[in-house]
Parts: sequence; structure tokens; C-alpha cells
Amino acid sequence: MILDASCHLEYKILEEISAIFMLRPRSGWAQWIMREDFALTPRVPVVEYTDLYGNCCQRIVMPKGDFHFSMKCRAWTPDDWDSKPLAPLQSVAQLPVEVLHYLLPSRYCQSDKLGAIATSIVGTTPHNHHQVTRIRTWIHENIAYERGSSDSSTSALETANTRRGVCRDFAHLGIALCRAINVPARMVVGFVHQLEPMDMHAWFEAYIGGRWYTFDATEDRPGGGRIVVAYGRDAADVALVSLFGNFTCTTMQVSVEKVVEASEE
Amino acid sequence: MILDASCHLEYKILEEISAIFMLRPRSGWAQWIMREDFALTPRVPVVEYTDLYGNCCQRIVMPKGDFHFSMKCRAWTPDDWDSKPLAPLQSVAQLPVEVLHYLLPSRYCQSDKLGAIATSIVGTTPHNHHQVTRIRTWIHENIAYERGSSDSSTSALETANTRRGVCRDFAHLGIALCRAINVPARMVVGFVHQLEPMDMHAWFEAYIGGRWYTFDATEDRPGGGRIVVAYGRDAADVALVSLFGNFTCTTMQVSVEKVVEASEE
Amino acid sequence: MILDASCHLEYKILEEISAIFMLRPRSGWAQWIMREDFALTPRVPVVEYTDLYGNCCQRIVMPKGDFHFSMKCRAWTPDDWDSKPLAPLQSVAQLPVEVLHYLLPSRYCQSDKLGAIATSIVGTTPHNHHQVTRIRTWIHENIAYERGSSDSSTSALETANTRRGVCRDFAHLGIALCRAINVPARMVVGFVHQLEPMDMHAWFEAYIGGRWYTFDATEDRPGGGRIVVAYGRDAADVALVSLFGNFTCTTMQVSVEKVVEASEE
Amino acid sequence: MILDASCHLEYKILEEISAIFMLRPRSGWAQWIMREDFALTPRVPVVEYTDLYGNCCQRIVMPKGDFHFSMKCRAWTPDDWDSKPLAPLQSVAQLPVEVLHYLLPSRYCQSDKLGAIATSIVGTTPHNHHQVTRIRTWIHENIAYERGSSDSSTSALETANTRRGVCRDFAHLGIALCRAINVPARMVVGFVHQLEPMDMHAWFEAYIGGRWYTFDATEDRPGGGRIVVAYGRDAADVALVSLFGNFTCTTMQVSVEKVVEASEE
Repeated sequence: MILDASCHLEYKILEEISAIFMLRPRSGWAQWIMREDFALTPRVPVVEYTDLYGNCCQRIVMPKGDFHFSMKCRAWTPDDWDSKPLAPLQSVAQLPVEVLHYLLPSRYCQSDKLGAIATSIVGTTPHNHHQVTRIRTWIHENIAYERGSSDSSTSALETANTRRGVCRDFAHLGIALCRAINVPARMVVGFVHQLEPMDMHAWFEAYIGGRWYTFDATEDRPGGGRIVVAYGRDAADVALVSLFGNFTCTTMQVSVEKVVEASEE
Repeated sequence: MILDASCHLEYKILEEISAIFMLRPRSGWAQWIMREDFALTPRVPVVEYTDLYGNCCQRIVMPKGDFHFSMKCRAWTPDDWDSKPLAPLQSVAQLPVEVLHYLLPSRYCQSDKLGAIATSIVGTTPHNHHQVTRIRTWIHENIAYERGSSDSSTSALETANTRRGVCRDFAHLGIALCRAINVPARMVVGFVHQLEPMDMHAWFEAYIGGRWYTFDATEDRPGGGRIVVAYGRDAADVALVSLFGNFTCTTMQVSVEKVVEASEE
Repeated sequence: MILDASCHLEYKILEEISAIFMLRPRSGWAQWIMREDFALTPRVPVVEYTDLYGNCCQRIVMPKGDFHFSMKCRAWTPDDWDSKPLAPLQSVAQLPVEVLHYLLPSRYCQSDKLGAIATSIVGTTPHNHHQVTRIRTWIHENIAYERGSSDSSTSALETANTRRGVCRDFAHLGIALCRAINVPARMVVGFVHQLEPMDMHAWFEAYIGGRWYTFDATEDRPGGGRIVVAYGRDAADVALVSLFGNFTCTTMQVSVEKVVEASEE
Repeated sequence: MILDASCHLEYKILEEISAIFMLRPRSGWAQWIMREDFALTPRVPVVEYTDLYGNCCQRIVMPKGDFHFSMKCRAWTPDDWDSKPLAPLQSVAQLPVEVLHYLLPSRYCQSDKLGAIATSIVGTTPHNHHQVTRIRTWIHENIAYERGSSDSSTSALETANTRRGVCRDFAHLGIALCRAINVPARMVVGFVHQLEPMDMHAWFEAYIGGRWYTFDATEDRPGGGRIVVAYGRDAADVALVSLFGNFTCTTMQVSVEKVVEASEE
């Protein structure tokens, strides 16, 4: 399907501060960015760069006063996501070197401490895509979605204990449990069609049988219609906006609309 | 200034062929891409990647029949280009490693054979930005701009002999002469405001005093208003469209318009 | 000075397992590897690669039985480390993009939770190299070096609470406190001349005034004579040996000897 | 087999000059560097870096006077090279993006001008590994090996005309002919066991069926026992020593010895 997505942010900046944006999606595996509009008001100089994970980042200095940011894009993305239940998990010896660092524990995903729970969840499931499906289902069924139950410092270890969280926590726990059984896993943030309520969303991907597969432990019926904005080890890597100083965010609007094409009408 | 640039191409494809496009400008040094629209008709799957030189490339398979390509962008770019006449040329020992390969001869820039002419042009000019200015001026005054006087296989060595060429040949000769005196130089292609007649343009950059400076041996009064689309060692690296098979290009339209902002009216 | 360093490891492998070694130092800033010998017994196929942080890694499959690893190198390294007390800390807007990810919290360095303590340590120290020196001194004076007081899952947050640890914990705390005041910091592991008792060592580097400076919160009189083996965000990135399965390490020998040159005798 | 290879160079330097060495082999596909010794006399500061093609380079400033360079290594390398006659050539659409630039013409390999001869050589050979074998055989049979028949500026186009050259010219022609039929090809320089007379050698690799295969148009019975030192598009990229100034090379010694292992005796 073709989606029009946008994110609009308004800030009050109390004194000049540095900021890094990571809200410019790039074409890639299973998504094609056809059109894009990136606006800053006031218009300030921008340094654009690509980070370690391939994300497109913009560094700016925000002057004191009102600051508006707006990103709009049109993207093609698959209607459904694919899965391959029998795709085999690979031993570490078979993994490509560029995914190896997604096996390591990270700030919010202490996989080194979640081995026992991961093992008990996957149990005797054959060593394939099913194991990660089991992890996803276990989180979906055992962790309660509760706004306000966690904050920006909450980690997978805490979520495994409190059994409560939001999409970011569900993703962190999924990532940590995958890594605990030696499956590379990474954080994804982006837009999702028909998300309720509409907002930026977080989910995860696991590397199985030679490629990345999408998993979402939050949604009941996870599907396609996703535009990836950023990848990383965990939320520490994919902050969509980092502001180094004092500010107030007064507005955040996210929208995702399906584009009806002539041939579909 | 803010520019709206576009490039529209139409092809007749005789049988399915592979194609690589390199016509999607990216934000960078002295340019900020604010808006962009990249359209292929019919819509075919696209693999987008970044090449060795940081260019944004799209690989597609074009089906038999009519194929239309259209890229539009809005970009901020400086009104004038800057220069720093006293910026010193650096010895090879001082150059950053990432520019060293721009010292090497390449397909169309046989710097290894142009040492004598380069030395005679720069003469006793102090070892700074002036040397490259002299190279530019020499080319501008000694090479005749003649459409049809060269083709896609013409190299700097030939241009130095025939003393005729088009913008691409002027750029190749500038690059080759710079490298011959151990100044890193690279090819640039892109859009230029008020180019007559309007078309895609080629020029070159030389690395002086710690950064790249723009030089254009073709234009009488070279200035800013440029949107860079691709960088490379020479034309071999920056083919804007590479089609691997039989085709006819029926239309090519390039436009560059200055955007008048409210505050300027 | 010129150092001969070596690391010898012996394992009993209970069943074939994957392993990754990160024990091959590379030439770089302030070290020059002149000679090197890397031996595996039995000799097995090796895949060598460079990770995200520039470390030279070797992936192998260890067969069941005895496995010996030995790395020897001769390196030039400065006698003392340099420091520049007045070098200014840079605002985030001034940092080069390649060091930005060293500002983020990581598995063992929860800088997002150590802001208060970091601020109280640096107090009113001018915003320069002195701030990091103060962090180092504070750790050295307030954390007790106690073997066995921590394990591989201990993080900077825990060390800040228990006030006990080993070199790895000292480094993690230093890194976390630096990041908490927006100073990029990274983990270093390597060889140190005259370390007592001799072993592999961990310390940290902070990015100040345009380059990395070395800090060691463990040693009384930290100095040069260091051969860096690996860099990373924290210990998760720089495991010198990662074995994915069951094994016993029966021997680990580390040696660092100064090479006396003819001219010094 | 296991080989001990070395290269020893002696220079007389007339005035301080910049130099770049590219003579430090790295472990990689089909070779494992077990031991290495890199010596410069006098000992000068070295900046080591990796170039665009993954080669390990050292930049130094050579002082006036005598300068000695010596590199020794011990490497494992296959006894024979492998080939896969039925491995299919891939269409451009199927090639991985990282090999695409090896399709482009380069300084010494004007593939854009050798299409007719390449097509006539491969004729109706099925579109697989055999086509490149045919190119190799054609060069071996039609180009005369003559020391002194070419120099450092000789290109594949000239070699195709004069039908004479040395190993470097044979490699350039092989590369240019491969690229002319859309097969990615690259230059290789390194050590070869039992080369007569012993010297550094140049050959080429072609990308077929998903990986690189070795071809050597110079040798009668090309085989294994090769240690790769550097890869590139052509000789412009793989100069083993680049000296930017006045010098005399007084000695060059290359040796390659097979190491007899206890188990083979």
C-alpha cells in the first residue's frame, strides 16, 4: 500500500540548544520513499549525517523562541508483513558479521540476565522462526499494556518483573529475550497505519534464516503498513528527537493515511 | 537562495533491462534538500543504495515499453560560492586519508601524463588556491566550447590536444591538471541556476586548505545556485542514468527555478 | 617505548562451539604495531573482520578437545600519556558526528541515571579537561578496588551504589559520569606495562577539545606504556573472547615486556 | 600451504618526501595471515589506514638519506585455486551493490572501448564462468610477454593493439574485457609461490555466480600459493609504494618460501 505519513512537532525553546532529529525515513528493505518534505521554522542551518545504524540524522542549533518541525513523506510499503515459520535460527558461526553486534546486551535490553526466562518461553520449540513467534506471543499475553507504567529509563529487566509497559517496553523485552537465545534482534521505530491511538510506534526485528523479520509484541493482529524511521540496538539509539537543554514540547501530531490510487477506486 | 529543480526523462525500452539512476540529490556541504519527489512510471521495485562516493543510487529493472522518470527537489544553496585565494595547497603528508584517492589518475583524467602542461600553467604561482584558479582560467581561455566536438569516451588527454569540448571535458581537464600537481580533485554533476541552455551540468572541486572548493572552467562568471547530484573521480563514476541494454531516450527536460520567498517580495 | 606483549589462553572445549576473538591490536592513534604473531592450535579456518568500532575480530569454530590461543606483538607506544588541562569540553553542536554515539547510555553505563552525581562531582570546575580529571580522581578516591566484589553483569549504577569494583567497573563508572555531562566517553581494553598483577586491563577515554584523551581511574599514577586491543561503548562491545557454548579456560597468561634497544643500553 | 613471504626495499632519498606503502597483507577470503613483521629504518611515525578497497596503507614522511623497508609475513593460502565452470554470470540487476563499481571503466581499463573485441572472444560461449576463462586464454595466447614493452602509463587499449606487455598489462586487459561484457573485475597484486623470476605479481579476479574467482592470464599453469597484498580497480589503485618526490630505489628483494610443517615431513 502507499501511505502518506507526517509528524509535526512544536517547541518552546528557553535558550539556544543543540538538537538531533532522526525522523527522516529512508528507502530500504520493504519500503520505498517516493516523496518527502522536511521543514524547520525558523529555517536554521542543518548538518545531515548517517549514523552507525544507517539512520538519517539532522543536527541543528535551535534558537530561543518557538520552533516548528514538520516531516511529511509518501512511501510504498507491503500490505502485510511476511514470515517464514520454518526459517531456521542460525548458529553464531553462520551469522553475517554485520549482525553480530545485535547479539550483545544493551542499555535497555540486558539479555545477559534473561537467559532463564527466555529458555523457559521457547522450551522445546524447534530451533526456528517459531521460537521468536513464541517470545512475541508470550510478551503479548503476559505483559499488560499500561500507559504511564514505565518511563524513559525502564529496561527489559524491569518490564520482565513488573509485567507492565508500553510499546517501547514490549519491544525491549522481545529484543532481550531473542538475544538471550543467540538470535540477533534490533529496535525499530516508525509509523504504522491504523494504529490506535495514532502515534509513533516501536517494535522489533529478529534475524532468522538470513534476513530480518518484523515482530510486534504490542499489537493484537500485527501487520504491514509500516514505515520504518530508525533502527538501533534499543531506545538509546533511536531517540527521534534529542534536545540538549531546556525546552517545552507544546504539540506533537502524527498522521498516517492510506493513499487511494486511481486503479483501486 | 532556494531552488526548485527537476529532471524528467522518457524512454522507450525495447526489452527488459537493468538500470541504475543517480539523480537523487542529498543534503550535504553547502546544500540542504528540503523537499523531494522521485517518481517512476510504471512503478517498479527499487533498490536504493549509497555508492563509494556517497551518491544515492537506485537500481531497477525497466520493463519493455514506455518508461518515465521524474525527480523534483527544493533545495537551499548559497547564492555565491566561496573561495579563499590564500588557502594553501597541502603536501600529501598533510592530506586527510579520505581524499587521497582523488590524487590518482582515472579513466578520463590521465593526470600521470599531464604533468608538464600542469607545471607550465601554474608556473611560479604561490603554492595556494591561486594555482587552481590559474588552471581554471587557462582551460576557460584555451579550450573552445563546442557541442559535438567530443563524445562519451573523450578523455582529458584528448581535450588537452584538440582544445575543444563540452562541460564534461572542461571538468575532466581541470581534474587531471590538479592531480598532476598533487591537488586532490573530483567531478561534480548537478543543477545550476540560469545555465544557458538549461541542462544537467558538470564541474569540478579541488581540495585546498582542508576543504573542497568549487571550480567551473566552462562558465564565464561561475557562481553559486548549484545543486550537487553526484560526486566521483570522473564521468565514469557519475553517470546519472546507466541502462544496460537497448533503449531510446525520447525526452529529457531539466528545469531550475528560483523560489521567491515572501520576505524577498 | 617499545613493548613486547603477549596473551596465551588454553581451553578445554566440551563440544564444538562458535567463538569470537578480539585480541589482535591494530596500529592507530599513539600506537604502532611493528610485529605480530597470532596462533591457534589446532589450526582452524578463521574469518577475520572489523567491527563497528574498528576492532579486528576473528570468528572460528572450536572443535571438541584442547584449544590453545596465543597472540604476541611488538608495538611502539608513548612513554607517557598526554593531557591538556585547558582543552575545552565541546557542546554537542560542535562534536564530530562519529563520536555522538559515545554520548548515549549503554548496557553497563546508565549515564541517564547518573546526572546528579556527575554534576555534584564536577561542581564548578571550568568546562574543560579538568572536569574529567575530577571524575577520574573522584572514582579513584571513592571506589574501593576489591577483586570479587563485582561480576560480568555489574553496571556503573551498581558500582556507584556499592562503591566497590575492579578495573572494568572503574572504567564503566568513569564513562557513565562523562556521558552524564555530555562528554563522549568510551571503553578501552589492552595491555599496560608494569601493571600489578599483570593481566589484561580496562580503562576509558574521553573526547575533549577535538580528540580522545586517556583516563585510568584504577591506577595510582596512570601513565603510558599501553597497547590498546579494543574500543567500545562498554564491556559488552569489547569481550576479548566470546565463546558460545560450554568450555573451561584452564590457562591465561599475559605478559608485557619493555624492549631494550641498542641505543638505550 | 603455508608460505613465508617477504619484500625488502632500499631507497636513497634526496630530500624529505611523503610516501604511502600498501604492502601489508590482511587476512581475508582464502588467506590467513598468521604472523607479520613490518620494519622501517630509520623508524619514523606511521599513520596506518584502510583505503576504499580495504587495503591496509601506511603513510609516512621519509627523511633525507638511506631508507630501508622490510615486510615479512607467514600466511596460509590454498594449494590450488578453485573454479566453477558452470557458475553463471549474473545480470547487472542481480549483482550486489558493492561490486557494481567494478563494472566501470578505469584509468588503465577502458572497457567502454573494448566491447567489440570482448564480444568476439567470448562468442557463443554460454553465459558463465567459461566466458572469463576464454578471455584469460585468449590473452595468454595472443599477447606476448615482453619485459620493457610497456611502462607505467600503458593501458589495456594499448595492450590490445600492441599485443605485448607484462603481468600488469595482462591483468588490465583481462579486467577491461570482463567489464566490457558486464562482468565485474578487479586488479590484484601480491606474492606467488614459485613465480619465475620471483617478483611481486599482478593478476585479476572476476565476480561470477556470487563470488570472486581468480584468473591469471600471464602464467602457463596458474595455481594457488598466492598471498594477496592489495585490491583495486586497476594499477592506479594498487601502487605498492607511492613516493611523492625525488628518490632512487637501490634494492628490491622479494621472496616466497613454502613452510614445511612437521606433519608433512
